[in-house]
Formats: sequence, C-alpha cells, structure tokens
Amino acid sequence: MLGQMMDKPLLISNLITYAAKFHGDRDIISVETDASITKTNWANINERAKKLASALGKLGLKAGDRCATIAWNNHRHLEVYFGTAGGEYVCHTINPRLSAEQLGYVINHANDQILFIDKTFLPIAVGLKDHMPNVKQVILMGAKDEEALAALPNIMFYEDLIASGDADYQWPDFDENTASSLCYTSGTTGHPKGVLYSHRSTLLHSYCVVMPDSLSLSALDNIIPVVPMFHVNAWGLPYAAAMTGAQLTLPGPGLDGASLLKMINEYQVTIAAGVPTLWQGLLAALRETGAKIPSLDRTIIGGTACPISLIKAFKDDYDVDILHAWGMTETSPVGLVNKPLIKHLNQSKDEQEAMAVKQGRPPFGIDIRICGDDGSKLAHDGAVQGELQVNGYWVVKDYFNIEADTTLAGDGWFATGDVATIDGDGFVNITDRAKDVIKSGGEWISSIDLENLAIGHDEILDAAVIGAKHIKWDERPVLLVVLAEGSSLSEAEILADYVGQVPKFWIPDRVLFVEALPHGGTGKLLKNKLRDDYGDCLL
Amino acid sequence: MLGQMMDKPLLISNLITYAAKFHGDRDIISVETDASITKTNWANINERAKKLASALGKLGLKAGDRCATIAWNNHRHLEVYFGTAGGEYVCHTINPRLSAEQLGYVINHANDQILFIDKTFLPIAVGLKDHMPNVKQVILMGAKDEEALAALPNIMFYEDLIASGDADYQWPDFDENTASSLCYTSGTTGHPKGVLYSHRSTLLHSYCVVMPDSLSLSALDNIIPVVPMFHVNAWGLPYAAAMTGAQLTLPGPGLDGASLLKMINEYQVTIAAGVPTLWQGLLAALRETGAKIPSLDRTIIGGTACPISLIKAFKDDYDVDILHAWGMTETSPVGLVNKPLIKHLNQSKDEQEAMAVKQGRPPFGIDIRICGDDGSKLAHDGAVQGELQVNGYWVVKDYFNIEADTTLAGDGWFATGDVATIDGDGFVNITDRAKDVIKSGGEWISSIDLENLAIGHDEILDAAVIGAKHIKWDERPVLLVVLAEGSSLSEAEILADYVGQVPKFWIPDRVLFVEALPHGGTGKLLKNKLRDDYGDCLL
Repeated sequence: MLGQMMDKPLLISNLITYAAKFHGDRDIISVETDASITKTNWANINERAKKLASALGKLGLKAGDRCATIAWNNHRHLEVYFGTAGGEYVCHTINPRLSAEQLGYVINHANDQILFIDKTFLPIAVGLKDHMPNVKQVILMGAKDEEALAALPNIMFYEDLIASGDADYQWPDFDENTASSLCYTSGTTGHPKGVLYSHRSTLLHSYCVVMPDSLSLSALDNIIPVVPMFHVNAWGLPYAAAMTGAQLTLPGPGLDGASLLKMINEYQVTIAAGVPTLWQGLLAALRETGAKIPSLDRTIIGGTACPISLIKAFKDDYDVDILHAWGMTETSPVGLVNKPLIKHLNQSKDEQEAMAVKQGRPPFGIDIRICGDDGSKLAHDGAVQGELQVNGYWVVKDYFNIEADTTLAGDGWFATGDVATIDGDGFVNITDRAKDVIKSGGEWISSIDLENLAIGHDEILDAAVIGAKHIKWDERPVLLVVLAEGSSLSEAEILADYVGQVPKFWIPDRVLFVEALPHGGTGKLLKNKLRDDYGDCLL
Repeated sequence: MLGQMMDKPLLISNLITYAAKFHGDRDIISVETDASITKTNWANINERAKKLASALGKLGLKAGDRCATIAWNNHRHLEVYFGTAGGEYVCHTINPRLSAEQLGYVINHANDQILFIDKTFLPIAVGLKDHMPNVKQVILMGAKDEEALAALPNIMFYEDLIASGDADYQWPDFDENTASSLCYTSGTTGHPKGVLYSHRSTLLHSYCVVMPDSLSLSALDNIIPVVPMFHVNAWGLPYAAAMTGAQLTLPGPGLDGASLLKMINEYQVTIAAGVPTLWQGLLAALRETGAKIPSLDRTIIGGTACPISLIKAFKDDYDVDILHAWGMTETSPVGLVNKPLIKHLNQSKDEQEAMAVKQGRPPFGIDIRICGDDGSKLAHDGAVQGELQVNGYWVVKDYFNIEADTTLAGDGWFATGDVATIDGDGFVNITDRAKDVIKSGGEWISSIDLENLAIGHDEILDAAVIGAKHIKWDERPVLLVVLAEGSSLSEAEILADYVGQVPKFWIPDRVLFVEALPHGGTGKLLKNKLRDDYGDCLL
C-alpha cells in the first residue's frame, strides 16, 4: 500500500527556485577572471540560469545533452550549474589541469555539445579546437571579447547567450533520477572515468552536507568554496548553499593566502572548504600580516590527510575549527565527516587530536564496511585493516559509458581502493591506498602513516613511501624525501624519528633523497612512477 | 538520460539500522507507565523492533496492514514505530483523548488489525472491545499482567510477542513510496481524517527536521519529545533522532513541570519540543524550586501561538531559546520554523520580539503562498492576508480512504485553512483560521490577535473571540473571557487595553464573562459551539 503524500521530484531547479524565492536578496560575491568583483544575489542567479537554459534550447540542445565547463569559481559558473541541470541538460565540469590528451579524451567520451570556458582557459580551447568534433559551440564566459574572437572566430559570448534567453522560461518537471552533472575522476593509470550524478542524488547529498553533523550550513553562513567548482562540484557546496539560502563568496582564480585572507575579512566569510595546501597558504598570510579572521568559524578539509600541526594552529591561534572530511568523486563527495560523539567530549587533548586526524564517521545516507582481499567482511575494531567499501544514496552505481565495471563489489557496494580501519563507532582511519599498501611478510604497512610522520619534520618538504621488492619479505618500505633548502638531514636521523612512533618492522629499509616527487594533474602523488623508478632498489 | 548513482530506497528501516550500527550505545531513556525508568539504547531498539516485525508476520499480518497504538512516549512505542514501518506495516498512532465514538471511528476506518495499548489505556480497549470487529489482537505494551488478562481474556503481552520474534530477521526492501504511518487529524467538525505518510516523505521530513535552520539536531543532542508520540509522530523526532544518533529521553505520562524539570536535569537534555502549556508548567516548576536547566539549549514550540512573555522568560532567566515552528498533521508536521536571516541579527530587541512570535519561514522542501477567496495569488508583502497554502515533499496529497477531497487547490497545493500574511523573506504570520476570521464591512479582523492580547492580561485565564452577526457590518468581534479567581476586571477595562494595539475597528463590540471555554479532545477551542451559543448576541 502506497502512502498518500505529494509526488514531487527532487530536482535541482527546486533548489534555485527556493533560494530565489526565500533568500533572493542574499549576496553572491564573485571574483572574475580579470580580478574584478561582481556582487549579485540568488534571485539574479535564478533569473540568469533560466535565461541560460532557455538559450541552450534555442541552440538546439536536447534533454540529456552534456555541456562542458572549464572555469573558475565565479557567478557565471554557478549559473551554468543551475541553468544546465535545471533545463534537463548535464553540467560536465572539467579540470583544466588535465593533460591535453586527457582533456580531449573526456570531452569526446562525454560527447559534450557545448564548451563553456573562462578567458584564462582560452588557450586550452584553441589547442583543442580540432580535437573535439562533437562540440557545436564554444562559449566564452563573459561579454564580447575581440582577443577571443581573433583566436576562435566561431566563439560565442556568454552575455549574448543570456540576452537571447526568455525571461519567462519556466523550469521543466522530469524524473528525479535524470542525470544532472558529470565529473571525471582521474586515477593515476588509465583513462579518466565519469561519474554521472542525478538530481535525486544531488539533492539527498545536499541535505547531508547541510546537517549539523556534516558541514552544518544555515542561512546565516557565508561560504567560500576554495575547492574548485571543477572538482566534484565544489564538494556540492553550490547546491547546499541554495538549499539553505547561505551566501556564496566565489574566489575566482585568487587562491593564494593573501587573496583568501582579504575575501574572508571583507565579506565576513563563516566557512571555508578546500585542500590542506590552501590552508597552509592562508596560515602563512595570517602570520605574515598579523591579521585575524574573526568571522571564520570553521574550515572543511578534504582531498588528503590534514597535518595535526595545521589543525592546532588554526584552533589555538585563530579559533577556527578544521573539520576533517573524506570523499571521492564517486561519493558526490561527502562520505565521512569527523564530528565528535558525546563519548569524545571528555577525552584528553591528546586523545582528541588523535581523533581529529581520522577521516570521520558516515552521516546518515552512507554505509561503510571494510573487506579483506578475499571479500570477507572484517571487524570494525579500529585495528583490522581492509579495503573501505561504501554504499548510499549518493554513491556511484557504475561509471558513465563504460561496459565492464570492476569497482563494485558483487553485492552492490563501491570499493574505494582505500585501505582503512573502522572503529566501533564507525570512525574511519584511512591507512593507505589499496595499491600502495606495503605487504611485508604477510603484514600490512601503511605508506600514508610513514609519509605523514616524515612530512611533519620541519626540514622535509615532501615525502613518499613505496613498497620496494624484497627477497625475504616480498616488500619492504622505502622512503623518498625532498629536503628543505640548506638541510643536511641524514638517513639515520630521519629513521631515528620513527622509533617508538610506529611498529619496529614498519621503519623503512632505506631513505632516498630526491629533488622533487612526481604529482599528477589533480595533485595526486604518482606512486606508480616511483615504483617503476625505485621499486627494485632493495634487490 | 538517467544518472548512474545507486538505487537505494528511502526506508525507515535504514534510519534504525544506521542508528544501531553507528550510534548503537547511545542511551534511550524511557519513563514507563508505572513511573519506573528503562535505560536502553539504539542497538537494543533495533533488535527488538526487528523481533517485533518478525512476530507480527507470525501473527498473520500482511504488507500494508495497519497496527494501532494508544500509548505514551516510551521505548516500546518507539520500537513499534520502527518495527511496524520497517516490516512494511503501517503504524497508526491514536490520540487517547478522542471521544469513544471517535476512537471507534478511526480504528474501523483505518481497518486496524492490531491494537497496542499502554496499561493506562486498558479501560479504552475494554470499552471498545465490541466495537472494533477487525482488530485481531489487542497487545498490552508490557509483560504479563493478571489485571489486564481479567479485563480482556484474549489480550496478548508485548514482551511475549517480542520473545516470539526471530533474532535474525532482516529488514525487507520495498518501494520508498510505501505507506509507513497513519495519523488522523480531528477538525472541530466532522469525522477525523487520516494522513497516510510514506517512507520517502518521512525520511525527507527527517532531513528537514535535522537542518540547522530547522531543529538543528546532531549526535550530541539529547531530545525530550514532550509532544506525544500520538501527535503527528511526535513531530517526527523519533525518526530525526535515529538519523543523527541523538539520545531520546521519553517522558512517558509525566508531563507536569516538576517531572520535566527532573528529567531534563537528570539526563542532561539539550532540546525539548511541545506545546506552550507544557512550558508554562516547566516555568512554574523552575520558579518554585529555584532550579536551573543548564543543559537545555532550546525548546521547539508548536501547535499554537506562543506568548511573547514565555519566550522572554526562558531566554532572559534560563538562556533557553524558544523556537517557534508551525505545522499540521498534513505537513508531517514541519512546515515553518522561525530562524533568523542575516538581516534580522541587527534588529532592535523590540523588532526581534515582533519576529519571534511569527510562525517562521519554510525550510527547503516546503513551498508556501497565500490566496484570496477567489483563488487569486496574493502578494507576499507582510500585510495582505490570505489563506495559507503549502506544497512539498512531506505534504499530504489526499486523505486516506476518502473519496472527495476538498482540501487541495486545483493546482495541487494543500489549503491549510489558516489565514496568514507572508513577508518578502517568506516569514509567515498566521492571523486566523479561515473559518474564524471575522469579516467586518469587507475587512478581515484576526480573532487570534485579539485573543492573544486578552490572554496576555494577568487576570484573564482563557479567551476567545468570535464573529457575531451584525446588521450593519455583517460580523463584529465579541470577546469571551474566563477571569482568574477573585478578579473583578470590567468590560470597559478589558476593551481599554486594546486601544493603540490594534486598529480601532478591530476592538470587540462586547465582552462576555464565562466560567469556561469549550475545548476539543486535542485542546482545540471549539469556536463552532461558541458561535452557536453567542453568534446572535449583537442582533
């Protein structure tokens, strides 16, 4: 027997309609590509998004057609988010740091019909113009620009497109499982793979992002998404902001510490989100200028483990909580957030710090487990390591347009490729990537734990630990380090630091000093290359 | 084109599974019918709910069958919530204050197969036993009880039922639009009407309840639902608590001020929810004992307008925020919550108090409008009054098992029967019930505003304003008051108080002094009866 409640689909257009109707005059601040600042609001974003959707229809787009973006965090990108999805098109955000080959691959694999670009990325569009046969139209995200016209004679201008849209366009109704956006995840090997989000998954994820035990967003918040809008939809913040009527402060290309500091204080930002590197930059700017950031209440850190020193500096010196969260493109991305339980409130400072570096626990809507190599379900005791698998309302079912899918466990769980422990309360500690974990004499050694300890050293700029082949133990850890300028730290000194901090058999067999470590387009350490180069160094 | 995210239905069993898995040891405190206290937790609630679902199947129940409850807020009632819905049955909570005739009507109209009762309500079950032919089994919510056996020889005992359930029962998967619970709403006329909630509407409503701009629930909260579990599912708090892993402190029958004070301090309750009368009782107990309630952060008030004096007393003397919310059985119930916007933070204290008595603004998921008698959509300017209509994910589509439905506007909005203004930010001020608004010479006069001003007087215990027939103006307001013992307040004194507080033409034409005012089973003032008795007094 069915209930008798209203049938109303979970659509992204409902988010922007709500924001425009009940929070219409709430500011949206946007730093443009030319560093000028636009002040607009949710009502205007909705009006322009509707005109955009209408104009895309006039360009001949059909429901489901993909529209690519290569753009910074700014108000036009926000309009494209809502205008494409609301109009039943798909917003395909592309990371400009991908290689030319990867850019061509994802545009063609997605079968993008439209390419929106910020002027910064005009050279990318010029370089790609003969390699994207299905793209009908490149659209520069701004007003008419002679330089762009000279470089790409067929280019259209965003403001002309908006002007051609109908002011009385109405958002269409359709199935909530319709695709809304598309993000490719670039592994360290193989082609990028696309995750095709739906309106339903996006709205349920937004409810999750808003929860007090997640990012805790309200109409009083002013959010600076420092995480790019081309990176897992800026962690879903544009949607969650519309859901609550929060202000968005979009930093454009200005992601250095000084620019962030200025934006936070000028616009009274309450919450920031991004990867640890950015907060290191902000911290440096704060220390250099002696400035304070009284409006900032919390920052959300994800993407990679956050050093405890950074958490402590923001808390002790600036009264800003750094909140650890974990997710993947495949999880929309919020999968875990490090929010305490009642039992943690009376912990010692040491215990609390040990908790703070964990990835967190799942909010409602996400389920988690760890499994062994043989697929067996392992204990949630905080000690046993296994591959982290997840399941939930905003988790990928299978990749876009790929036949064989190897990431789903047989029973419908997504295998993350992360190795982790889970404690009795569901707190996850990620110890490694499955392919990076070092299997030494049948025991698992966490390369991440060894790296974090090394990076904690003042004189070490970057570090990587790989499993090198070993005749007796199969694999043994080898540490590669980039020393700070002028440092004369020795192998023996570095290894001595591990004593007492990790089990004795975890201590690396060798330290190699290198000039730099190889990172991919999205900043990921390319351990495959390190294993190719150094994997035989113990033989 | 559909997205490629996991297909996972929004089921109530997912809430209790989550609470048990990630917050299993979080306390559930329950005051039993005999005043003893049970301390259990989410893991146990889940285990027993599963056994209950299994046992109901063994009793021959089929998917969709309704199970009635007449019970206080306690752990067994909580188990019945999850056990029935999780097992694909429907939990039909009944208000014991209904008349015998209404009780019989709703049990038969719902076609209830099972009746769960707390021992307090044994006399109700005895009285009904020959008037509910479809009820297969009455179940006393406790262990074997000789007195109950003597009164109803076929009665079963809840603990025996639980003992008969399978410990390894697994929650079934089914369509999220399946009915999960049923609440009847008793108007002041006609038969009660049933609202049949679905799993989907319940989970989306729970996400809404949890939001910072709604009740803002986290795992750190300890919730005392003083609102009965037979009243719109205790405003959805049992579900929202499971969604966050919050503690529930269930007060059983002890709803007097002294009992609430004891529970709040003994169990460190952080949030309470109920109607204003209960908070008047708590306030009296606080003042009498000189006690403080340091753990209590906020209380949610709904059901009826809250006097500003109560809001001020809790804020100024006890640092407890009273949060105004509005809803109906038909809206699950949360439709509006009074949470400020940025623009309200710098208001004067007077302006903030004027805001605080409003019903609030809609959280995402609810849309609102006001309409005239002719169905025209009226301006949201904070001045124009019209009938409040709502639309949303957890709003009723039509009533259970009733052919003709007159509550839905033609375009799918639910007409609340409340008269309200809406300001430009969506803040609603309910000025009357549509049938109670006084239409004097073409202008609308709010009976509620006139009543609230009268009730604010120290010597007035209760007040009602009706529109009495008038030869010249069609209707004119007449005030009925119940004076405090010993008061000699005169008609002229009472009317003088209105001067300057309301438009002059709102001031009642007459004051009638009465011994008591007639209230229905759920506390609603029976204005129909007052109009029958006094509607001609100006002719």
